Amino acid sequence: MHDEEERIRFVEDAAVVVRGGVIDFVGPATDVRVRGLPAAERIDARGQVAVPGLINCHSHAAMAALRGVAEDLPAEEWFNDVVWPIESNLTPRDVELGTRLACAEMIRGGVTCFADHYFEMDRVAAVADESGLRAHLGEAFFSSQGPEGRERSLEFALRHRGAAGGRITTALAPHAPYTVDDADLAATAALAREHGLPVHLHVAESRAQTDNSLARHGVTPVEVLERTGLLDVPAGVLIAHGTGIVERDLPVLERARGPVGVATAPRTYLKFGWTTTPVRALRGIGVPVGLATDGAASNNCLDLWQAMALTALVQKAAEGDPRWLTSRQALHHATLQSARAVGLGDRIGSLAPGRRADIVLVDLTGPHTQPVHDLAATLVHSVRAADVRTTVVDGRVLMRDRELLTVDVAETVRELGERLPALVDRSHGERIQEYDRPPG
Amino acid sequence: MHDEEERIRFVEDAAVVVRGGVIDFVGPATDVRVRGLPAAERIDARGQVAVPGLINCHSHAAMAALRGVAEDLPAEEWFNDVVWPIESNLTPRDVELGTRLACAEMIRGGVTCFADHYFEMDRVAAVADESGLRAHLGEAFFSSQGPEGRERSLEFALRHRGAAGGRITTALAPHAPYTVDDADLAATAALAREHGLPVHLHVAESRAQTDNSLARHGVTPVEVLERTGLLDVPAGVLIAHGTGIVERDLPVLERARGPVGVATAPRTYLKFGWTTTPVRALRGIGVPVGLATDGAASNNCLDLWQAMALTALVQKAAEGDPRWLTSRQALHHATLQSARAVGLGDRIGSLAPGRRADIVLVDLTGPHTQPVHDLAATLVHSVRAADVRTTVVDGRVLMRDRELLTVDVAETVRELGERLPALVDRSHGERIQEYDRPPG
Repeated sequence: MHDEEERIRFVEDAAVVVRGGVIDFVGPATDVRVRGLPAAERIDARGQVAVPGLINCHSHAAMAALRGVAEDLPAEEWFNDVVWPIESNLTPRDVELGTRLACAEMIRGGVTCFADHYFEMDRVAAVADESGLRAHLGEAFFSSQGPEGRERSLEFALRHRGAAGGRITTALAPHAPYTVDDADLAATAALAREHGLPVHLHVAESRAQTDNSLARHGVTPVEVLERTGLLDVPAGVLIAHGTGIVERDLPVLERARGPVGVATAPRTYLKFGWTTTPVRALRGIGVPVGLATDGAASNNCLDLWQAMALTALVQKAAEGDPRWLTSRQALHHATLQSARAVGLGDRIGSLAPGRRADIVLVDLTGPHTQPVHDLAATLVHSVRAADVRTTVVDGRVLMRDRELLTVDVAETVRELGERLPALVDRSHGERIQEYDRPPG
Repeated sequence: MHDEEERIRFVEDAAVVVRGGVIDFVGPATDVRVRGLPAAERIDARGQVAVPGLINCHSHAAMAALRGVAEDLPAEEWFNDVVWPIESNLTPRDVELGTRLACAEMIRGGVTCFADHYFEMDRVAAVADESGLRAHLGEAFFSSQGPEGRERSLEFALRHRGAAGGRITTALAPHAPYTVDDADLAATAALAREHGLPVHLHVAESRAQTDNSLARHGVTPVEVLERTGLLDVPAGVLIAHGTGIVERDLPVLERARGPVGVATAPRTYLKFGWTTTPVRALRGIGVPVGLATDGAASNNCLDLWQAMALTALVQKAAEGDPRWLTSRQALHHATLQSARAVGLGDRIGSLAPGRRADIVLVDLTGPHTQPVHDLAATLVHSVRAADVRTTVVDGRVLMRDRELLTVDVAETVRELGERLPALVDRSHGERIQEYDRPPG
């Protein structure tokens, strides 16, 4: 829970009452007994702690199918030589199966909402619906696709907005400033304003991208957002990564007229040998920083507990300051800041009356989580994804005592396995895009 | 497995035959069926992979009792204000219970051997024996204890060497060059030579320690090891951490006449905002680098899978080179290099005939470990401690299908919980030692 100043607060011997998918009450279990409410279902979670469902603020869920396919490579080879050639083989069925596998992994790890940025997003929306997860979805496009890319992204966003009983929200999803030209970004900003949609895109993924942008255009990727109007979108812009956000970008972000959020996926940055997102500087100007995994082809998993711990650890190391990014700050990033980054700051991210009932029960009886001297530290630095016992979204139980109720993993893995040889074939010599070559 | 050039090798549909605590055969399961050997016990591990038991090359197991007690602090406050005051309360029973909890955590996470450096080590030896783990143990001492500290460390090492059916090996364990003076270190080196014992100590834990040592004594901590004879100990020296090993230390380590190993615990360094162990430079001069967790009061867990992944990730980031520290290199650190670092390079660290049967079975059927495009990457970057199904040491099953057979966690946690208020009391204003003040 959070108090009025948004500080993390823990309640012992607590009960959470859910009614119609919404949290109705959080407080001492004795109060619930006194009120004597009849319940359709009771979950006894003694020895466990209830936390807000985790939010994966930037993912490419279907890339679970490509976990481990491109290892120990610099980003440009990872994209140009492996991932983008393989993605030219992607079929809607591959996306569906990869996303289903990812949803199983996320539910098992206590993720209740994921922001996804990929292709064939109709299938992703269908899988999100069937899996029971909450999702914030955008159909990715490049300028190389012509105006049709942008139009498809808009059409997707309008068609699926509010789907799955409101669990699905949508965004326009240009790939990045280095693959989508300024005119296309400006047109996207105009569409976003016209239709009340947010925008989700990769920005300044690495410091090298910022340096390239400066060398070629004289502006940083964040300055490109500003001049194309993307920082004035009323429904907000979600910046994925931002490890290349530099000093001069801070005043630009500070004067943004629309809400800006950043998603940090620290495991990807370590793997590529990059620096990390400047979380402290962003916090200093009031930009919420949510936690993310990125796709499993770079990460290699969709584990938000790991993202939370790594954010705390890597930020301490990056700043050379062990007092920065305490466990409570990490929990704030994982809850309210993540909810705000994906535009759901008033609906999820806290266990409080009126919020959607996205709740995760975490077992603390394992030897690796005992004793508990400091519950925030236990949650950030000791708990692992496998300690999640029960995952609830909108009041619906998606996993109970580690048993997945909405996804058949074995069948998904079986069919995916049959399709992998065709999916990973690179003999055609094609790729869907070129990395690090600016458009135009 | 490893081939003749020590490259990691995987065998599909393999069987491992164990006889008298030793690996008798590793190879195709069909070969075992042909030989028709009768077995006292068979473990069916379809869908799982057998790997050498993991080795925790530097720990303070009993500090599991202090997990989360000193969070988000710089090292000097962590030591002086919290940990060393608390450790002045330590009783043998606290050490026993903390170690038992740690052993449970390690067995559940596929650790089969731990190198421990702490106090009241008789109790640690007893718990290692009862838990079934392999252990490399040293009784820590400071020069502030007078010659008795060193003598007790020797007495412990001689009394327990070869105990628990050979599972326990021992070392002399001075704390560190900044808490043990040169005369005491030289006397330790002489005792090590006389008795054929190795030495295990903290060296250059942080860059600040190296800078302090240079400012005060004109030499680095590694140069202190050289001038006190610790680099000439025939049974070897195990250097914990070494994040402050600098360029000028490399030729010193290279001309060492005894075996030198380094234990790296990357999670601790991130948490303290330190730089990390220069693994690439150490590999360049042939020094084996093993993986470690350090104590759970800094880490906050004893998870070698996490140490392995973090070593790969942090080394890539530290070198700015995503090609360095591949998954196969990480596995080599986790297996043979770790075995060598703790002086057991000919007995454990590989699944090969003649080696002790320290074997871990890892389940790969979870959604987060599927599909498997690259088994080395799956093991390093996707597998988590909770995927370990079965842990075997010296041919004895210590955990079967996640059920611990040698440790009662609930009872350990219960009794420890009763003792914690007295253990963490700091009102006495004492501490066992002063951090960062050189002796003499």
